Amino acid sequence: MDAVKRLKKNLQNRKLDALLVSQPDNRRYLSGFKAGDMNIAESSGALLVARRGQPLLLTDFRYQLEAEAEAVGFEVLVYKRGMLDLLKGVLSDRGIKRLAFESHYFLHRTAGKLEEMTRKIGVEPVATSGLIERLRLCKSSVEIDRIRASVLLNEQVFQEVFRELKPGMTERQVAIKIETLMREKGAAGPSFESIVAGGPNGARPHAVPGDRPLKKGEPIVIDMGLVLAGYCSDMTRTVVLGEPDAKTRKIFRLVRQAQKAGIKAVRAGVTGAEVDRAARQIIEQAGYGAQFGHGLGHGVGLAVHEGPAFSSRYKKKLRAGMVVTVEPGIYLPDWGGVRLENMVVVTEQGCEVLNTDTTFLDL
Amino acid sequence: MDAVKRLKKNLQNRKLDALLVSQPDNRRYLSGFKAGDMNIAESSGALLVARRGQPLLLTDFRYQLEAEAEAVGFEVLVYKRGMLDLLKGVLSDRGIKRLAFESHYFLHRTAGKLEEMTRKIGVEPVATSGLIERLRLCKSSVEIDRIRASVLLNEQVFQEVFRELKPGMTERQVAIKIETLMREKGAAGPSFESIVAGGPNGARPHAVPGDRPLKKGEPIVIDMGLVLAGYCSDMTRTVVLGEPDAKTRKIFRLVRQAQKAGIKAVRAGVTGAEVDRAARQIIEQAGYGAQFGHGLGHGVGLAVHEGPAFSSRYKKKLRAGMVVTVEPGIYLPDWGGVRLENMVVVTEQGCEVLNTDTTFLDL
Repeated sequence: MDAVKRLKKNLQNRKLDALLVSQPDNRRYLSGFKAGDMNIAESSGALLVARRGQPLLLTDFRYQLEAEAEAVGFEVLVYKRGMLDLLKGVLSDRGIKRLAFESHYFLHRTAGKLEEMTRKIGVEPVATSGLIERLRLCKSSVEIDRIRASVLLNEQVFQEVFRELKPGMTERQVAIKIETLMREKGAAGPSFESIVAGGPNGARPHAVPGDRPLKKGEPIVIDMGLVLAGYCSDMTRTVVLGEPDAKTRKIFRLVRQAQKAGIKAVRAGVTGAEVDRAARQIIEQAGYGAQFGHGLGHGVGLAVHEGPAFSSRYKKKLRAGMVVTVEPGIYLPDWGGVRLENMVVVTEQGCEVLNTDTTFLDL
Repeated sequence: MDAVKRLKKNLQNRKLDALLVSQPDNRRYLSGFKAGDMNIAESSGALLVARRGQPLLLTDFRYQLEAEAEAVGFEVLVYKRGMLDLLKGVLSDRGIKRLAFESHYFLHRTAGKLEEMTRKIGVEPVATSGLIERLRLCKSSVEIDRIRASVLLNEQVFQEVFRELKPGMTERQVAIKIETLMREKGAAGPSFESIVAGGPNGARPHAVPGDRPLKKGEPIVIDMGLVLAGYCSDMTRTVVLGEPDAKTRKIFRLVRQAQKAGIKAVRAGVTGAEVDRAARQIIEQAGYGAQFGHGLGHGVGLAVHEGPAFSSRYKKKLRAGMVVTVEPGIYLPDWGGVRLENMVVVTEQGCEVLNTDTTFLDL
């Protein structure tokens, strides 16, 4: 409930009477209600946190039992004719006049319906963006422990699968092994669709595992993460079965050098852009700048992609407790790719690398 | 490209110059581009289909190779500083003045940015909803074949897992078996998170598999579906290990009777509400109306939940080629639940049931 208190203070400062929280990770962060949304158009519910009084969780029949068990401190209200219908009565009862909603999760169409409803009862809707995401940026020690557990379990799965890798196995077979093992070891599931990309497929940063058999000597990109107790992990290794050739070795060492430079640059007070630059300049100087087409890293927590970012566009200063990936890559069409990804916690003095796995890290 | 032609005609009738298609299933339906979105705030791209000329696929570096291989007939453009930046130039070049966007997938925040950009260049943004979803409602024979293949593979997985079910296995263990087998048999993955809910957990229509061991004699709800060649399946069986008791038998038969009545009511020309009513009145007459808190069914295709709906709110007439689930359920807190779900294709004369599995269908 500490997060609810921080939010209430925030609402007061912004002269907002209440915030309607519909983004699933934000819902969970504030209330403990675990349900995701089936899809963006099919909400499992929303919190209504007002400056005063007990916060509410509005949901439907399907999630009532979970809501009551999980959302400690919240009053659960169940809607039958849609959330807006129930919300209308609640806003009137509670005298809420300025209602904030999450512009970055509310659909344009739903926002239109909300505006229509609130107009009728004299409530002013206020589009906000990232209020809860900003609270989530710096992780508490409990959250860091959960993320660490997620990272370590992910590494166990990787190491077990790596030991069984053989030429001739298909990318899909490896991906299935990974995701099955994740669940068997207690993860809720993968935090994103696992990537296993051998040879030329590695040139696609978001390759989907296919029926191509793995071959000796080629770089194989494995990017995987899981969800444990709600918190995500995300790790990439590029491995070779047999001996890497000279080109693989060269590209690999360059990426690793960039990763080390990135990690070295992380510290509370520097910007995400500065960290990105530290890693990127190494790849640029070697002539591969155009082949590193994505940002250096992204925040990880309840979501596998969240703030902050290590990218040229992130000009804000890092703060202690942020958890971010450091994942440079070089992608060469027709040849393949190398990407290396670890997760770090920002500290006042620098950062702590959460990963312990050293498989194919230093060739 | 037939769907693109139908869309172009549609745009002409509505005096729209172009539609920006950002919803992933709609993108795939029109272009063949398979990528999903990592999340609602992280698009993998958008189509721009204008009334005249070659349609475009705007995407970023990460998906370029896939886009070029998959989106036959589309010109692929890659953006570096965000999609809206690239779109701005394209709209000007092509003389597009009235640009429709998908209000039911566009975020309120993104729509705000789009409106700001288009205002500057004298383009009128037009919020639309469901243009492509309406094209997707009636399936082609190719699509029905793919859905059928998805249904049959899903049944194979179910039957194989069912044979191995034993008291003492946990819900999670069963769910892992299901999802692993789906992938091993060639599915891209589950079409939603599999539900395995034993005893009292079955009272939660969207229960998440937990560590509770399955017990003899209790109803166990298994709701599962997979994605094959892009198309979804969705099936529910309620099974009992050992002998069902009198109460289970009674509830089960009632649900099955309602399902049969629902299936019997399906025909092109009747409304979704009429089908819902046909099944619901049987459960209501037996005194369990309040324990059947969800609609009778939903459309299935590229999405596992799409139009049409068998629900009291769906007053439109069904058309041949629609594919819909028929899934009545009764949920009794502390006791458990029974749900039975098959998929049907609407025909002029009635419907074709796509399922062949008869496990625990007629007790």
